[in-house]
Amino acid sequence: MALIVHKYGGTSMGSTERIKNVARRVAKWHDAGYQVIVVPSAMSGETNRLIGMAKEISPQPDPRELDMLASTGEQVSVALLAMALHSVGKEAVSYAGWQVAIKTDSAFTKARIQSIDDTKVKADLDAGRVVIITGFQGVDDGGNIATLGRGGSDTSAVAIAVAMKAQECLIYTDVDGVYTTDPRVVSDARRLNTVTFEEMLEMASLGSKVLQIRSVEFAGNYRMPTRVLSSLTDPMIPLEVEVNSGTLISFEEDTHMEQAAITGIAFNRDEAKITVLGVPDKPGIAYQILGPVADANIEVDMIIQNQSVDGKTDFTFTVPRGDYAKAMDTLELHVKSHIGGSITGDAKVSKVSVVGVGMRSHVGIASQMFRTLSEEGINILMISTSEIKISVLIDEKYMELAVRALHKAFGLENA
Amino acid sequence: MALIVHKYGGTSMGSTERIKNVARRVAKWHDAGYQVIVVPSAMSGETNRLIGMAKEISPQPDPRELDMLASTGEQVSVALLAMALHSVGKEAVSYAGWQVAIKTDSAFTKARIQSIDDTKVKADLDAGRVVIITGFQGVDDGGNIATLGRGGSDTSAVAIAVAMKAQECLIYTDVDGVYTTDPRVVSDARRLNTVTFEEMLEMASLGSKVLQIRSVEFAGNYRMPTRVLSSLTDPMIPLEVEVNSGTLISFEEDTHMEQAAITGIAFNRDEAKITVLGVPDKPGIAYQILGPVADANIEVDMIIQNQSVDGKTDFTFTVPRGDYAKAMDTLELHVKSHIGGSITGDAKVSKVSVVGVGMRSHVGIASQMFRTLSEEGINILMISTSEIKISVLIDEKYMELAVRALHKAFGLENA
Repeated sequence: MALIVHKYGGTSMGSTERIKNVARRVAKWHDAGYQVIVVPSAMSGETNRLIGMAKEISPQPDPRELDMLASTGEQVSVALLAMALHSVGKEAVSYAGWQVAIKTDSAFTKARIQSIDDTKVKADLDAGRVVIITGFQGVDDGGNIATLGRGGSDTSAVAIAVAMKAQECLIYTDVDGVYTTDPRVVSDARRLNTVTFEEMLEMASLGSKVLQIRSVEFAGNYRMPTRVLSSLTDPMIPLEVEVNSGTLISFEEDTHMEQAAITGIAFNRDEAKITVLGVPDKPGIAYQILGPVADANIEVDMIIQNQSVDGKTDFTFTVPRGDYAKAMDTLELHVKSHIGGSITGDAKVSKVSVVGVGMRSHVGIASQMFRTLSEEGINILMISTSEIKISVLIDEKYMELAVRALHKAFGLENA
Repeated sequence: MALIVHKYGGTSMGSTERIKNVARRVAKWHDAGYQVIVVPSAMSGETNRLIGMAKEISPQPDPRELDMLASTGEQVSVALLAMALHSVGKEAVSYAGWQVAIKTDSAFTKARIQSIDDTKVKADLDAGRVVIITGFQGVDDGGNIATLGRGGSDTSAVAIAVAMKAQECLIYTDVDGVYTTDPRVVSDARRLNTVTFEEMLEMASLGSKVLQIRSVEFAGNYRMPTRVLSSLTDPMIPLEVEVNSGTLISFEEDTHMEQAAITGIAFNRDEAKITVLGVPDKPGIAYQILGPVADANIEVDMIIQNQSVDGKTDFTFTVPRGDYAKAMDTLELHVKSHIGGSITGDAKVSKVSVVGVGMRSHVGIASQMFRTLSEEGINILMISTSEIKISVLIDEKYMELAVRALHKAFGLENA
């Protein structure tokens, strides 16, 4: 009998009514002969409520205690979902992470799953029960609860699917799949039936925040077919429709053989750019500049170092806009006293990327991208490339225009 | 170093501000050189909120899942209290019942504690940490969370105090001790410095709902000195004042040697009385009448069977007023078809009791009680007695009058 893992997000679990709908959907799969494991998130708002109380007590709560606290949100969800399944006539049992031995390391609030014991769950499934397991959490060697960090329920679901050798992991969420770009920006953006694991990584990290990126990495490492689909449809839609809805993250190299070179246009509005001008061009200079930024826990994305002139060079990088002021403060002091040179920055820039594994075998993608932007009069501030994506940094005010123009130029509105 | 267990009720844990006060109070004890274990209840309202969601999903939720759900309330409390202790500079660690192996049977929603492993807690205490343990819950042999039922945190606290060989178990609550009677009825009711275990059992079961009765039984079985005291005082009042505040439940037989025969007047307003008239006086008749009542889950309290006349007798008993209609319905049918006789009842009666271990060695307590009621013109409907209490059933409208008259007659306003 095929085993399937369902993961439901906080919105899908947001009220007792919605939990009943989740139960109906799960029961439908079970009725069709599937063994089902369900991994629900905390009810929407619950994790924020808990963390809010913690912050009222202490500005910097102890991570172990924060995990003890936050993990209760998912425990509430699994118990309520088990009751909802009982009331639609299904045998079901809920488990907290520690009860099925989801072992993690001890990095509280950002733990990683190390192993899952399948004994208990297998016995329940074989006895015809739906098994419901808390997402987001496990237990370390010392018997302490450790959470995986925000969005960790996606990772839990994929890890459980891998450990239990599931046929597919279904991530039910409030969007109906992965699109060629954000439909709020491009009205004829098209839902993708499949994306490759690598494309999904680029799409996710570039702003299409559908799945927690660690869950995609996990799925990729273990080649677990993972589908993103909507939990907002009628729970009783026919199974044969639901099975093929959403977007499948695939690990088959040939999925895209007949498809277009480009899969989608990703973007991130909230970038900021910092340039250190006239720094001495000598070994170790990148580390000297970026070291203090990393120490301040600021993530650096694109990095460019120009050809040097007269032993001096310019060094430019981007940071999330929210960290711009902090990064500038950190650098001002450091550059003046240790490196020399001056600093300039721009907090109103955005990143636009074309993504696609097909790019590997198609020449001319970059030139078509640059020509399209040029025809729209959009100046490119920075460029960075990888095997399957090309990103450009542009003035924030041109972002929507760039996304729309590129979406059209690469013909993404046609299937 | 003396070990002390603190238990805080839901009101004391009712907000982040109050939790900070609990932390200040616990820190004061720790500063004074005590090792401290804290057992907090769920924040007030939280258990009801959780059970409410369960009832929205299913009118009769599965008990195992109900425990999985309800146990999260205490887990939230222990984590927040640990954070609050950290912010007043104390090392503290929180544990759910399963983490310190509070083993219970599998009677979900009304489990009983079987054993507690002291290894982990002892190591923490010896390392100078305050240890915070969830009340109300443990884990069964199958690794399932089981709760002890409403008020179970009192029982957890006493059981932990016993297992850890604590010097005293302090139950912090929103009253400042056990009184000679309810101060809302008798304005000069006096707080008792000590009550014996047996008196506390009678006072608790008769309506002075200060402590869960099972916790008193537990304390009695293991002779654990247990003190009820107020959590509403300033947390920074001097320790020497706090140490002797509240009411100590004592297990020393001689505590009362010099004291009055009577400790207090307990009462329960909401009683109802049912009489089956003219039933055949033959063996098994009590069981035949009360069997169906017990099967309907109705608790029977006082029971009287009159001397029979001509082979017929009258049989009278009391039930909680809320169960009166149900009990009458149950009996109507049953008595008519199986026993013979007629039924009459009164749903406006109350029970008043005088309680005191001193009663054992003092004659004339009963006659003084009956004379006092007679002088007030109060008719006695039923009488029942035990070693340390005499209870009478009277018309509801005389209840306050009876309590006040008895309180005065036995001189309870004087220390």
